[in-house]
This record gives sequence, structure tokens and C-alpha cells, in this order.
Amino acid sequence: MSEIISISVDVMGGDTGPAVTVPGCALALERLPNTRFILVGDETQIKAVLENYPELEEKSEVIHTDVAVGMDDKPSQALRRGRRVSSMWVALAAVADKRAGFAVSAGNTGALMAMARFALKMMPNVSRPAIAAIWPTIPGESIVLDVGATIGVDSERLVDFAVMGEAMARALFGIERPSVGLLNIGVEEVKGLEEVRIAHRMLRSSNIPMQYKGFVEGDDIGKGSVDVVVTEGFSGNIALKTAEGTAKQFAAYLRSAMSQTFLSRIGFLLARSAFARLREKMDPRKSNGGVFLGLNGIVIKSHGGTDAEGFAAAVALGYEMTSNNLLDNISADLTLHRASVDAEAETGQEGEKQDK
Amino acid sequence: MSEIISISVDVMGGDTGPAVTVPGCALALERLPNTRFILVGDETQIKAVLENYPELEEKSEVIHTDVAVGMDDKPSQALRRGRRVSSMWVALAAVADKRAGFAVSAGNTGALMAMARFALKMMPNVSRPAIAAIWPTIPGESIVLDVGATIGVDSERLVDFAVMGEAMARALFGIERPSVGLLNIGVEEVKGLEEVRIAHRMLRSSNIPMQYKGFVEGDDIGKGSVDVVVTEGFSGNIALKTAEGTAKQFAAYLRSAMSQTFLSRIGFLLARSAFARLREKMDPRKSNGGVFLGLNGIVIKSHGGTDAEGFAAAVALGYEMTSNNLLDNISADLTLHRASVDAEAETGQEGEKQDK
Repeated sequence: MSEIISISVDVMGGDTGPAVTVPGCALALERLPNTRFILVGDETQIKAVLENYPELEEKSEVIHTDVAVGMDDKPSQALRRGRRVSSMWVALAAVADKRAGFAVSAGNTGALMAMARFALKMMPNVSRPAIAAIWPTIPGESIVLDVGATIGVDSERLVDFAVMGEAMARALFGIERPSVGLLNIGVEEVKGLEEVRIAHRMLRSSNIPMQYKGFVEGDDIGKGSVDVVVTEGFSGNIALKTAEGTAKQFAAYLRSAMSQTFLSRIGFLLARSAFARLREKMDPRKSNGGVFLGLNGIVIKSHGGTDAEGFAAAVALGYEMTSNNLLDNISADLTLHRASVDAEAETGQEGEKQDK
Repeated sequence: MSEIISISVDVMGGDTGPAVTVPGCALALERLPNTRFILVGDETQIKAVLENYPELEEKSEVIHTDVAVGMDDKPSQALRRGRRVSSMWVALAAVADKRAGFAVSAGNTGALMAMARFALKMMPNVSRPAIAAIWPTIPGESIVLDVGATIGVDSERLVDFAVMGEAMARALFGIERPSVGLLNIGVEEVKGLEEVRIAHRMLRSSNIPMQYKGFVEGDDIGKGSVDVVVTEGFSGNIALKTAEGTAKQFAAYLRSAMSQTFLSRIGFLLARSAFARLREKMDPRKSNGGVFLGLNGIVIKSHGGTDAEGFAAAVALGYEMTSNNLLDNISADLTLHRASVDAEAETGQEGEKQDK
């Protein structure tokens, strides 16, 4: 019997708020019986939905808040209006106070990240947060980070991202030494941005528990060439959105092709279980949930437009991270990495001394 | 009757050289009778293939070269070994000397770009080249640039790319005022890189013949939200490769789903014409060919691993660009753009004077 994990939920976040988030929590509870919920938001609205889910009601505490952060609020606006008083903030504060193991919100990403940085603070030795996405691949799943938290980072930040991503892969996939690649254009060392090249050299000589595979290109993500793909937030976000766009495009082509002739329509009917399996495989709800990394607490960002199934997947993702001690793993690996950097600096100095 | 266009071909470029490029030219000639070919490379190898294509032989001039640039040669290596003497260089030189309307090569991108910059020189007022890709979308096709020529450009270069992309869309799609978007993360003006934000302000106030639609995100590319998507080379290359990876992933899922059960296999057989149509729609050969922009001459980069069909598509793309006077269009639009920038600067100065 594992211990019970408390989950704080920003019930008001997302395009539809309680109508999706509360049933999502109910679904998650069915699958994860060792959980309790702290439901934060408008009490009247929450209770109106919650009464349909007696099992969830029994395992939940409702915390009333008057303010809900809007989906279009800018981070600065959200902080001004919502600090200490919004459902988003109070859900994060429960993680800061150790009353919850992790927080989930379908609210707007920029506001959630800004509030999380205030409410939870950065981990020691980490200066910039990252958002990690679970990316479905041909053989299974990979982790891609950063997909939009920080733009234009330097090489040390890229190395931090590699360490955090590797720790997350161990927690999520149960792999002892996950393979890690650095997203670049071309696999020659001469190509690519200066920061990416420096990070490459740093990762090659680090002793963190991973297999560093060097540079990977955009098409390696879908192939699943590595467990963890590291990049800065601008290109990571563009890669993520471009893949979403391509998947939709393929689905549109397929629909149009299958409805074109009488025979193709019959074929489609006969193969409908295969198409259902394909749809399930491509289902964005299954890999719903970006994990905020680098903070003193686990925060899961659910897609704003998701349904109860997708929200439950985001909750399950947080549960997985929390029960596998993601934060402790990251801390330990960061310490290990710093030690290897320091040791190398010392050796380097000694080498210099000997040169004299 | 339009005039005859001469096409210079780096026959030795690509994974298979003459075995693909010569039949590719023969296919292109069938479709584009108003063409002549300058086939550059090892004469013996070329003639061995060419004798199977008497129509092409009749319309071709063969120029012998001893040196072929390798697919893995670094640009500096290629220039050292191949300047003036390689099939790649001599094909480009034919464009510089106006003996050819454009050049096609399936050789390695870095080497081809380096040689093209030497052999053709940059257009006046353009400081950095771009590679434009034709991107299949749900409603049709768009142009995305830069997909890998220049990394980390500033705002003025992004504006140059927008001008060149817009001119290319007019030449290729025959649209009078193509819609143009700037690739960014999030559609709020506050987000994204500084250079992207400055380019955004510059494009809003430019009077070049386009509809500037502001920021677009990665998923807008596949949707076909705009005719031209502008970005710098690092994120553009990652977007392109990521989309390729996602398309392959979808195809792998589909294959596996359709072969799983007896009924799905029957369904697949019945719908095979639909699947053939889908395959054709997703066929990377159809959109084979990156266009080098910003040089005093048109150069088409074919995929190194393409077949004759794909090589013929690259030739057809160059033909389209050349017969629609792409270079003159770009020059005219750049001049128009500079004039509008200068006019604005003058108005700004006058405004300042009046303020005094």
C-alpha cells in the first residue's frame, strides 16, 4: 500500500472550468484510489457538479476563491489580480505548504508559470524553469523540453534541462539511464547555434545517469530516437505545435480519402476498429499535460480545451511524477552534475598549474 | 510560345548521382518541352545513362568535370576541393554566366549554399540567403522560409525573408497579394523573441504587395493559415524536420492498424485507391525542392535521397520560378520596401523637426 497523495486542483482553469475539471478528477480517482483532492474555486459552482460524484466528494476538500484567472490574462495581469486570491494561486500555495503533492491547472500557461515561480520559487541551482511535454513516438513515448517556458537560453540552462528531463524519464518510464539528445539542425558538430554546441560539449563530459546521444534533428522526435529531447523554449514550442498541425493535416487527408468512393467507404466500415485504434494512438488527450520543471513543487499544466478524460490524464501524470519522487531525483542529479563540473574545473586548474 | 529555358544540372549530386538525376531530367523534359539541359559531371557516367533517353540527349549539352562534391563534405572542404572544377560549381557558374536560367542539385545543402554564395553572389540589399520549402497544407501549399540557411537572424533579415517569400508566392501560386505570417510562440505581441517582435512592427508598416497577417504558430503551417510563413533557419529547419517525422509516424501507425485484423486487411484492400490517394497527398517527392533565395540566380536544392520523379519535381519548381521572373519580382519588391522604409525615416525626421 503506497501512501495517499493529495492533489490540489485549480478547478476554474480551462475553457470550461468545473464542468470538465471536476468530472476529470472523478475519473482520476477511479484509477488512482490512493488520492485525495483539494478542489479550489467557486464553491457554489464546484458543489453543483461535485454532487454528481459522491466518491470524489467524499475524498475532497473544497476551498472557496472569488477570483479566477482568465484564459487571455497576461502573466502580469494575472499576478496583479490573482495573487493570493485566485483559484490558480491557492492551488499552487497548497503545494508550497506541502498540503498537496502536486497541483493541476488547465488555466493559461503564461499566468500559471508566473504564479508558480512566485508561489513555489525555483529549485536551488536552477535559474530558469522548463515545460516538459510527453511526446508520442513510433515505439512509445519521449519527453521533450522546453516547449515554451523560456526563450533563448544559454548552454548551462540547456544542460539543466537535460538533467531535469533525464530525471523525469527515470520517474515516468522507469528507465535507469535514459537516452538524451540535443535538438539541432544537422548532426555535424560544426552546425547549429553556439549555445547548443557548448551544451553538447558539457553533456558529453557530465556524469549524470544518462546515455548522452549527441545531436538529434526534428524528425528524430517522432522516431523516438532518444527518451529525452532537449531544446530551448522557442524552437521546442514551434516543434510541438508543428507536430500537432501535421497530425491534424494527416487526419484531414485520411478522412477525405476514405469518404471519396463507395468502395473506400465500405473499406472504412470494415476497418473501423483499426481506425479507432489509430485515433486512440493519435489522441491528444492521452498525452495531455505539460510538466513544469525547475520549481520547488510539481505543477501539471493541462490543455485548456481538454475534456474530463484529458484532465484525468494530466492528474495521472502528476501522480506518477510525485509517487516516483521526481523532485528528489532532480535535486540529486543536479548535485551530481555540479560536482562533476567542479571536479573538472579543479582538474583543469591543476592541469594549468602543471603546465607552468 | 514561351522562350526556351536552359537548366544546368549538377548530375553528380545526390545519393545516387546520374542514375537518378538523368532520368529525372528526362521526365522533366517530357512535361516541360520548352527546356534545354546543361548536364554537368563525369562524361562517361552521364553518357552511359543518357543513351537510354534519346529525347533528352538531343536537348542536352554535357560538360565534363572530374570532381564531385561528397554528400558529407563540409562547406569549407567542398569549396577547397570543388571550386571551379566540381560539377556543383560548374552548374552554378552556368547560371552566373546567364547560360542557364537556373541550376538544380541534389548535392549536400551546406556545400551547395556555400558555393552558390561564391558563384552567384548575394542580390543587392540582401545580406543573408534563405532556403524556402514548399509545404503541403490542408487546403493546398504554403511557402516556409528559412528552413536552414541562416541561424539566428535579426529583424531586418526576417523582413527580407518576408519580401522574398511573398515574391516567390506570387511567382509560384499566382496570387496577387499573398498572405504572410511571422512564426512565433503565442499570438500575443508580448511573447516571443525580440527580433521577431521588431520584424512584426516593421512588416505591419511596410507597403510591399502582401497581406501581413501577424504572428502564426507552428500548427498554422499545416492548416495553411497563410501563404508564406517566415522564420529564421534554426526553428524553420526544426519545424520542417519535425513535420516530416510526424508524417512518418502517422503512416507507421496507419500501416500497423490496417494490418492488425482480418477485417481491417479486407477494408484496406477495398479502400486501396483511397490509400493510394492519401500516399500521393503525403508524397514527399511532390514537394521536393528547396529554393535558395537572396542570390543573383535561382538554385533548386533537391533532396539527396530522392528518385527520378522527385528530381523532376525539383526541376519543374525551378522552371516555374524562372518563367515567372522570380528574381525581378524580388528585386522590385525589395526596392519598394526600402523606399517605404526611407520614406518613413524621412517622415519621422520631419516630425521631429516640427516638434522643435
